[in-house]
Amino acid sequence: MQNILIIGAGRSSIYLIDYLFEHASAYGWKITVADAAPDAARKLLGDAVSDSITEFDATDGPSREKLITECDLVISMLPAFLHVEVAKDCLRLKKHLITPSYISKEMREMESEVKAAGLIFLNELGVDPGIDHMSAMRMLDEVRDRGGEVTRFESFTGGLVAPESDNNPWNYKFTWNPRNVVLAGQGGAVKFRHNGKFKYIPYQKLFRRTEIIEIPEYGRFEGYANRDSLNYRELYDLENVPTIYRGTLRRVGYCRAWDIFVQMGMTDDSYIMADSADITHRQFTNSFLAFNASDSVELKLMHYMKLDQDSEVIEKLNWLGIFDDEPVGLGKNATPAQILQRILEKKWSLEPEDKDMIVMWHKLHTLEAGESSEREFHSSMVVIGEPRPKTAMAKTVGLPVAMAAKLVLTGEFKTPGVHMPVIPELYSPILEELETYGISFTEKEYTGEDAAQAV
Amino acid sequence: MQNILIIGAGRSSIYLIDYLFEHASAYGWKITVADAAPDAARKLLGDAVSDSITEFDATDGPSREKLITECDLVISMLPAFLHVEVAKDCLRLKKHLITPSYISKEMREMESEVKAAGLIFLNELGVDPGIDHMSAMRMLDEVRDRGGEVTRFESFTGGLVAPESDNNPWNYKFTWNPRNVVLAGQGGAVKFRHNGKFKYIPYQKLFRRTEIIEIPEYGRFEGYANRDSLNYRELYDLENVPTIYRGTLRRVGYCRAWDIFVQMGMTDDSYIMADSADITHRQFTNSFLAFNASDSVELKLMHYMKLDQDSEVIEKLNWLGIFDDEPVGLGKNATPAQILQRILEKKWSLEPEDKDMIVMWHKLHTLEAGESSEREFHSSMVVIGEPRPKTAMAKTVGLPVAMAAKLVLTGEFKTPGVHMPVIPELYSPILEELETYGISFTEKEYTGEDAAQAV
Repeated sequence: MQNILIIGAGRSSIYLIDYLFEHASAYGWKITVADAAPDAARKLLGDAVSDSITEFDATDGPSREKLITECDLVISMLPAFLHVEVAKDCLRLKKHLITPSYISKEMREMESEVKAAGLIFLNELGVDPGIDHMSAMRMLDEVRDRGGEVTRFESFTGGLVAPESDNNPWNYKFTWNPRNVVLAGQGGAVKFRHNGKFKYIPYQKLFRRTEIIEIPEYGRFEGYANRDSLNYRELYDLENVPTIYRGTLRRVGYCRAWDIFVQMGMTDDSYIMADSADITHRQFTNSFLAFNASDSVELKLMHYMKLDQDSEVIEKLNWLGIFDDEPVGLGKNATPAQILQRILEKKWSLEPEDKDMIVMWHKLHTLEAGESSEREFHSSMVVIGEPRPKTAMAKTVGLPVAMAAKLVLTGEFKTPGVHMPVIPELYSPILEELETYGISFTEKEYTGEDAAQAV
Repeated sequence: MQNILIIGAGRSSIYLIDYLFEHASAYGWKITVADAAPDAARKLLGDAVSDSITEFDATDGPSREKLITECDLVISMLPAFLHVEVAKDCLRLKKHLITPSYISKEMREMESEVKAAGLIFLNELGVDPGIDHMSAMRMLDEVRDRGGEVTRFESFTGGLVAPESDNNPWNYKFTWNPRNVVLAGQGGAVKFRHNGKFKYIPYQKLFRRTEIIEIPEYGRFEGYANRDSLNYRELYDLENVPTIYRGTLRRVGYCRAWDIFVQMGMTDDSYIMADSADITHRQFTNSFLAFNASDSVELKLMHYMKLDQDSEVIEKLNWLGIFDDEPVGLGKNATPAQILQRILEKKWSLEPEDKDMIVMWHKLHTLEAGESSEREFHSSMVVIGEPRPKTAMAKTVGLPVAMAAKLVLTGEFKTPGVHMPVIPELYSPILEELETYGISFTEKEYTGEDAAQAV
């Protein structure tokens, strides 16, 4: 009997927990789900699991130690900043650990100790990071294994609303953390490499430097650049690749309209707006426009942003209600970003029956052995979710984590250390099993006229 | 005999030191000039002063203490961050202190101790901050003294090139700290108040929200907003004024062209550009533009920034040489802001015969006692400098400091505490004496059709 401890049963955990319970008897697993809100967890996970749920405060050291002592492997689904304390416990108590999150500096620094203790700490095992690593590395390794050279690598992921639930002019709804969407792209210029040259995009131009991407059966998307492309050069062993670019997917037209919020200053999270507790949508918008005793907020915005009154951007802004006299309703002074988020949540929240969609797309240019002109390969994955809580996000985050746990517990993966799934021992079995759950990539060599537009 | 110690004999000190030496025998002053580069100071200040100059390292505590012990009043012309250590010495050794710089948090926190010791620490006695405080408070106090109410306050200052030395399409040269010019407006949104409403301008729109200002005899200027307007509400006792706005002056057209650097990301000081040590102007510009194997850097920039090829903005950019194949010449990897500064310095540095110009402009709307409609008053100051080192900047920074020293040493001003010149006991005698040096304000009630454009 092996004991699995799952810490945190939030909205991304249902597929993870279902998978583990389904396989529990076959593999001899005993599962404990520890969560700060056990009643909510019971409601989410259903009766079959109910007895395995225990109330738990992740910041309470002694009770964390007690639970971890009793298990063989810990799966931490806590917010990323809470993984470190769990990891320290696992190291001290000699337990394996799996998280879906980015490897933090602190986690990375434990590497030699983890190895010395013969432990396995697996990270970045969700969808992004996670499935992006696995699918990219599989493509890249295939090229290198057949003697080819990668000359260009692009990778885009987006969490979107499914086509059947898409009923607004933005073709977008919040399917994950709204705050991350509002703050996207902030914190420094985007840096990437194109044909060997380093290129830079400042925040104020980020949403106007998009790439149009076509995904078979799903139509056109646009991608804006992520800040971290250059980090992936080392990670994916692409140090000499002349072009490397990572980005986030939206439906075409989103970025041009979002850029208005950026230009107006509405996404700023660095200061609290005075007297904003009882502000209306319209007053919020007007705070970023010049004073005039008679001109309308609409006309001032259109003039300031050089928008035609019949533009699709104005239609999108109108639909969101940014000109409405309705109170924002936060009830306390807040930053522009917090107020904008609240306004967006009124329109962009998923309805109970809505489905989400995860879209991932990679593009590779290669120079194959013995050839003199480049080939282009595209690979795409689209996962449509079910209504909450069985979202595509929960599925694509939870299943790889669960499958990684199985690899560790069965001894199929046994290399000690702090890992992410960029090695075949991890990505091959997980990608293969994900296919049986309908999470698969369509790869093809691409030679059409409609080549993706350059950034 | 009273001993004056001047620490730092940099480029803003010549008028200060000349003034003090001119008045030394009449008032019985002995003057010591302490500087890290005594030879440069001798060259700057001339033979008459030579014997009073002593070599001095401001960061050397013991020698600082020795010099301060021997004097009655210290004038610190050091870079602002070095004032604090001097101020601590002055407090311990019971000496008066004058600086031209903003009162730091640390200086403010010494207030009660300074008062208890019967000492006078005068700050913000240059031009901006300095003459701006004095001239604004004189106008504001006059209105309040006659029973009027201030309903709008605007204040703009600029350090520019004098018309007779103005020979470039930007109508601008560096007359002070180039780095501050490149980084202007960064670090957070501009916040101001207009007709009782709080208004916000993000950095990405700052240089497109300008106000056009006409100054008699000197023509048209434009002002962009400073970040600190709201701080001045308390300082100037304007807490209830519906409109308060401070800004920086440039010649018309500067801001629209500068905005291109902002939009491109060239003013970013937050990251080092890879491989930039040997970069050319053209390569630097191209780093912010999309890759294309054949399109020119010029066309890519014009398209990205939506500029016509015959626009004045393109003329300005061309003139600066941002498309030239010339190496920037920094010799090490640097931030975009550092590289841009170097490119600008090649064209915007003052020639030996060039003159600078300080321009200051205030606008007040008032509701006078017994009246129902507002009146508008403008006040402007223009000071044309002589070639370096006798610049308008040195004159307008140095003379108020020197005059304040005289007020303290003669006992005309004797209120202990940490002060800035927003009180009549300081601003009245200094503004009056400045007039004898040609530094004066032209005030007039303004009722023209060409009212200043709203922001």
